[in-house]
Amino acid sequence: MALIYVSAWSDADIWRAEVAKHLPGETLRVWPDVGNVDEIDVALVWKPPHGSLATLPALKLIVNMGVGVDSLLQDPNLPRHVPLVRLVDPLMTEQMTEYVVLGVLAGFRKLLDYRALQAEGRWVEIDRDVAPPSERVVGILGQGELGTDAARKFLALGYKVAGWSRSPKHILGVESFHGQDRLHAFLGRCDAVVCLLPLTPETRGIVNARTIAAMKKGAWFVNGARGGQVVDADLLAALDSGHLSGAFLDVFNEEPLPPSHPYWRHPKVIATPHIAALTLPSMSERIMDAVKRYKAGKPLINVVDLERGY
Amino acid sequence: MALIYVSAWSDADIWRAEVAKHLPGETLRVWPDVGNVDEIDVALVWKPPHGSLATLPALKLIVNMGVGVDSLLQDPNLPRHVPLVRLVDPLMTEQMTEYVVLGVLAGFRKLLDYRALQAEGRWVEIDRDVAPPSERVVGILGQGELGTDAARKFLALGYKVAGWSRSPKHILGVESFHGQDRLHAFLGRCDAVVCLLPLTPETRGIVNARTIAAMKKGAWFVNGARGGQVVDADLLAALDSGHLSGAFLDVFNEEPLPPSHPYWRHPKVIATPHIAALTLPSMSERIMDAVKRYKAGKPLINVVDLERGY
Repeated sequence: MALIYVSAWSDADIWRAEVAKHLPGETLRVWPDVGNVDEIDVALVWKPPHGSLATLPALKLIVNMGVGVDSLLQDPNLPRHVPLVRLVDPLMTEQMTEYVVLGVLAGFRKLLDYRALQAEGRWVEIDRDVAPPSERVVGILGQGELGTDAARKFLALGYKVAGWSRSPKHILGVESFHGQDRLHAFLGRCDAVVCLLPLTPETRGIVNARTIAAMKKGAWFVNGARGGQVVDADLLAALDSGHLSGAFLDVFNEEPLPPSHPYWRHPKVIATPHIAALTLPSMSERIMDAVKRYKAGKPLINVVDLERGY
Repeated sequence: MALIYVSAWSDADIWRAEVAKHLPGETLRVWPDVGNVDEIDVALVWKPPHGSLATLPALKLIVNMGVGVDSLLQDPNLPRHVPLVRLVDPLMTEQMTEYVVLGVLAGFRKLLDYRALQAEGRWVEIDRDVAPPSERVVGILGQGELGTDAARKFLALGYKVAGWSRSPKHILGVESFHGQDRLHAFLGRCDAVVCLLPLTPETRGIVNARTIAAMKKGAWFVNGARGGQVVDADLLAALDSGHLSGAFLDVFNEEPLPPSHPYWRHPKVIATPHIAALTLPSMSERIMDAVKRYKAGKPLINVVDLERGY
């Protein structure tokens, strides 16, 4: 049997080396050089072209080399009978939390304003009344692996933390909200709102004119999840009206973000090119572990519930 | 007996209100309207004009409304027989840690580079090999109240943490170094170096060509302490040569930073106007507590050792 790497990205060499290291005797084929498709039982994938996985009839395991499987689930020909495992690597979680901590603190400490003053060489204290961390509420949309880690670390930094999730979750020290009914109550509590939700039909466009209106005036928004959760026109309107103080965005409805998109040059937006959490070669152990578990007939970890979408 | 507020700053009204609230029956005189100087036994001070305290013969207590007393100790006519208490408020410590976490993370996640790309509307991942927090070492110069809090919070965020101090300090989980002999060994360990030292004759100019050369190539420097600890020409040279990747600076040898200073427009510098940790009215409880302790004859807390300088 054989492994294949299926991705629109051209980083196969890295993973070929990792397979050689962790799975001695195995070699990694690289899409579209499939060879005999009846031999291929495992696919390591990252944003595989739609339809590609359907051409592999002997597939027994799909390993998604990232946390989010939304792109994969949009493939109408995804072989839905094949177990799909997603990468939930602690190093990736660490990276994401680092990113959203940076994102929130940049807002709380008015970095955009101070950078604008710096560009003009002006020494002006614009925030004599800065609230210390223990007087601020950081809200986390999503309380899965990523949201839980972020919540715990914001707590450790001394913030009050509120969390919202689809189903009830309890994290020690976090004020927890769940369900659509409680979304507005949650949003109204937060000085910063961090999106770490999976992108599913339920969460698509969840950051829209109505939910933004439920946020505190002057709140700061950070998105480390997926661009599809945001209605861009509504977010831009809230930034322009001053209802939100700014946004720190890593993900967008269209990626790469088109050069003409208003986010690029908006004075209240910090935009980064989907770099919050990257799948690194050092994470290959978890990826290869999924393959080993399959081969040994052991239970798989982090299997995606296709109905739920994560 | 009477209280006086002595400061070059014009925020006396705030403190007058706080005195009325916390010390009923007391009123706060405001320098230079001293009235009968023989009545004044307590001075609340923030950067008092040099010589001002020497004109108060009945002084029994000086309360510095901030952590750093370096400016005060430079007054050649400081009444050195009067106990000097400095404000070590947990809210101020929280603010400082928030600032230096922002400062370090901005460096680690290459915020200046991404902002430059954003200004050009360019979607470029410049750091595919970003090291996750657990593979980075944050070094803290100074292991007092501020340094200890920062060290603990960087640990909570998942970084490796090293600390350097004059005398031996032990913080659980922190790789501790102390004394001049170990300074270079410490600096060589760190991916980011955060200065939270008091400014004393020993620490003046401690960030200079020799110590910067001992830092890792590509290290990032954050200063939340005092500008006097940095030899500006040496830091600028290290930024220009690429030995350091950048600096996040809140404090400067001359404040306000003169409009022509190269830090303002240096592409590798983020400069803020001494706003990392501000004395807020909400901290008045600690300030007034010092006065109450004096009046009740109780032991004072956070008395400055004038020889040591903090």
